[in-house]
Amino acid sequence: MAEHSFHPPQRTLMGPGPSDVSPRVLEALARPTIGHLDPVFVEMMEEMKGLLQYAFQTRNELTFPVSAPGSAGMETCFVNLVEPGDKVIVCRNGVFGGRMKENVERCGATPVMVEDEWGKVVDPQKLEDALKANPDAKLVAFVHAETSTGAQSDARTLVELAHAHDCLALVDAVTSLGGSPLKVDEWGIDAVYSGTQKCLSAPPGLSPVSFSERAAEVIRNRKRKVQSWFLDLNLVMGYWGSGAKRAYHHTAPINNLYGLHEALVILKEEGLENAWARHEKHHQALRAGLEAMGLSFVVKEGDRLPQLNAVTLPEGIDDAAVRGRLLRDFNLEIGAGLGALAGKVWRIGLMGHACNARNVRYCLMALESVLADLGADIATGVALPAADKVLAD
Amino acid sequence: MAEHSFHPPQRTLMGPGPSDVSPRVLEALARPTIGHLDPVFVEMMEEMKGLLQYAFQTRNELTFPVSAPGSAGMETCFVNLVEPGDKVIVCRNGVFGGRMKENVERCGATPVMVEDEWGKVVDPQKLEDALKANPDAKLVAFVHAETSTGAQSDARTLVELAHAHDCLALVDAVTSLGGSPLKVDEWGIDAVYSGTQKCLSAPPGLSPVSFSERAAEVIRNRKRKVQSWFLDLNLVMGYWGSGAKRAYHHTAPINNLYGLHEALVILKEEGLENAWARHEKHHQALRAGLEAMGLSFVVKEGDRLPQLNAVTLPEGIDDAAVRGRLLRDFNLEIGAGLGALAGKVWRIGLMGHACNARNVRYCLMALESVLADLGADIATGVALPAADKVLAD
Repeated sequence: MAEHSFHPPQRTLMGPGPSDVSPRVLEALARPTIGHLDPVFVEMMEEMKGLLQYAFQTRNELTFPVSAPGSAGMETCFVNLVEPGDKVIVCRNGVFGGRMKENVERCGATPVMVEDEWGKVVDPQKLEDALKANPDAKLVAFVHAETSTGAQSDARTLVELAHAHDCLALVDAVTSLGGSPLKVDEWGIDAVYSGTQKCLSAPPGLSPVSFSERAAEVIRNRKRKVQSWFLDLNLVMGYWGSGAKRAYHHTAPINNLYGLHEALVILKEEGLENAWARHEKHHQALRAGLEAMGLSFVVKEGDRLPQLNAVTLPEGIDDAAVRGRLLRDFNLEIGAGLGALAGKVWRIGLMGHACNARNVRYCLMALESVLADLGADIATGVALPAADKVLAD
Repeated sequence: MAEHSFHPPQRTLMGPGPSDVSPRVLEALARPTIGHLDPVFVEMMEEMKGLLQYAFQTRNELTFPVSAPGSAGMETCFVNLVEPGDKVIVCRNGVFGGRMKENVERCGATPVMVEDEWGKVVDPQKLEDALKANPDAKLVAFVHAETSTGAQSDARTLVELAHAHDCLALVDAVTSLGGSPLKVDEWGIDAVYSGTQKCLSAPPGLSPVSFSERAAEVIRNRKRKVQSWFLDLNLVMGYWGSGAKRAYHHTAPINNLYGLHEALVILKEEGLENAWARHEKHHQALRAGLEAMGLSFVVKEGDRLPQLNAVTLPEGIDDAAVRGRLLRDFNLEIGAGLGALAGKVWRIGLMGHACNARNVRYCLMALESVLADLGADIATGVALPAADKVLAD
C-alpha cells in the first residue's frame, strides 16, 4: 500500500468537464483556510452571490453555490420545489433528462416524459402537447445544454410555454453557464442549477443555483418538509441569506469557494458577452478542422453547443484505443459517449479556460496523428489550416 | 460591487473546525485538475480508500469520502439505511443528535429519543431501557464525539448494546476521526461518517464514510429506492467500488480529494496512535492552563474529548466581545457555544495540524490578555507556566 503524496500529470482537459483550471484559480485554492463564520469569509460570500448573479444574469436574491457537485444542485431544485403527488413534465433528449426523471420519482411525484432523440434539441411542440394534456402539471424541467450530446435547446421558448400553462420552469445549465448565452431573468427561468467544472473552469465540487421569487415562494409554502436536510433551502438560507445573523447550517467547502470566487472574478474581467464570443469563435475553428478531417457532428448546425462538440467516430475505429493514445502520448483528455452513444461518439470540450487557440490546434493535431496512425479513413494535413483560417478572422 | 481576488487573512483556527490546514495539504489542493475517470485519478481513489480504512481502523470494502461536507455524510447513512416506517433509536446529548432526529423523520421513519443533558455522555442504561421498550427498532444512532459540547461517549459499549438487541449501530465520528481512539471493526460499528475539517485538517467539503458488510447488505436489499439520487450508495458504488469498470455517477471534487489524500498520508506517516497521543498531551496542557486561569470545563473529567475543549465563560463577560478581540487582535478563532450553550461557553479546538504546543501557548496567552483587559475575574501569569509544565513532561 503506497503512502506517498499524489502528483497528478498535467493534462489538457478537453472532455465534457472538468475543464482545465486556470493557474489563478489553482493558486486561490491554496490560500489559508479560515472559518465558515469568519466575518471576512461572510463578506466574500456576499461578493460571490453578486458575481453569480452576474454570471446567471439575474437579480434573484436566492442565488448561491450548493456545497456539492452539479448532481446535488439538480437534486436541490427538485427536492425543494416538488412534493409527493405533484406532476412534473420532464423533457429528455440525453442522459441528464433521465436523471431528472429519477429525481422526480424519488420525490414521490409523477414524471410526464417529453421524449426527443439523443442529439436533437427539445421540441417545443411536443412540450406544448404535453402541457395541454396535463393541465395539472406544476413544473417543467429541461436541460438547456445537454452535456451528453452537445445539443442546445431553446430555453427562452420552453420557459415561455411552461409559464403560459402556469408551470414553473426548472433548467439544467450545467454546461451553458459562462459558455453560451443564458439569461435567467430575461427568459424568466424559475430555478436553475449549474456546475463549476465546465465553462467556469473551477474544480468540481460546487453547484451554483438560482431561484426566482415565485419559486422561493413555493419553497416557503411547502406542505411537507423537504426530504433532504442537507439540501433544504429553508435551512440553507439561514447561512447563505442576507439576514443580520448567519446561522450555522453546515460547514461550507471554504477552499473550493475561494476557487469559484476567483473563477467568477476572471469571468467578470473578461465580460460575459466576450466569453460567449470566445467560445463561439473557437468552436467554429475546431468545427472547421474536424470537418476538414472528415468527421461529422452528432447535432445539426444551429443547435450545437460551442463548448461541447460531439462527433461520430470514423468507421472501424476503436473508441477506447484512441482516447487511451491521446491520454498517454499527448496528455490530452477528450470525452467518451454516454448511454446510447457510448463507443460511437467523442465529446470534445472547449470550456472556459480550456477554450483557446492553442487547445484547438493541439487537439486537431493529436487526433489527426492518432487516427492516421490507426489507419482511419480521414483527410490529413487539412485540419490545422482549416482551423487557422477561422482563428485568423 | 468589488471584483478582486479574495485574499483571506492567516488565522489560527482553534474553533470546532475547520482547523488549521497543513501547508502540505494546501499545496496539494493547487495541483493540476485531472479528469474524474482518468486512470491516474482512479488509482489515487484506490489509495484513498486504503488510507481511510487505516484511519477508521476497518477492513470495510464500502469505505470512501462522500462528495460533500459532514452533514451530507450523516444524510448518506440515514437515507441508505432507513426506510419509511422504520423505528430508529437516536441518542441526543447535543446539537448533532438533534440533527439525526431530523434525518430520521425526513426518511419517513420514527425516531425514539434517548435524551441526556448537553455536556453529558450518552447513558448506556438509558439506551438499554429504550432498546428493551422498542424491540422493533432497526437502528441505534449516536454521536461519538459531540462537537457542540466536547463530550465523548463510550462507543464500544453503545454499539454492543445495539447489537445485543439486533440493531445496526450508526455512529457520528465527525470530530473523533484522527483525534481520539476510533476502532470501527473492533467496536463493530455498522455505519460511520466523519468530516475532513476536524482532526484530519483538510479543508471542509468531503465526508469519509464506512459501512460494515451487514449494513451494505441492508442497503442492497432495500424495499424502496433511496430517496436521494445523489447519495444513493447503490449508484455511488458504481464509481467508488472496485469493479472492473467505473461508471460515471457524479463528478468527484477532484482537488478537494487531492487535499484529503495528502492529509491522510500525513496521518499515516505520524501513525494513528501517535496522533491520538499528541491530541491527549496538548489537551492536558491546554486544560492545565485554562484551569490555572480559573476557567472550568463543561464536561466532567474522563468524558472529555481532547480535541474539543468546552469551557464556561467567566461571569459578566460578553462572549462576542472576547471572540471578536481574539480574531481582530490575534487572528485567533475559537468557537462559540451552540443551541442551549450559546453565549455561555467557548469551544476551543485542538484538532489535527492545529494541535501543537505553539497553539496551546498562543491561545492561553491571547485569552488571558483579552480577559484581563476586559476585567474578568481570572488568575493571570499562571496559565502559561501550568501548560508548559505538562508540555515539558
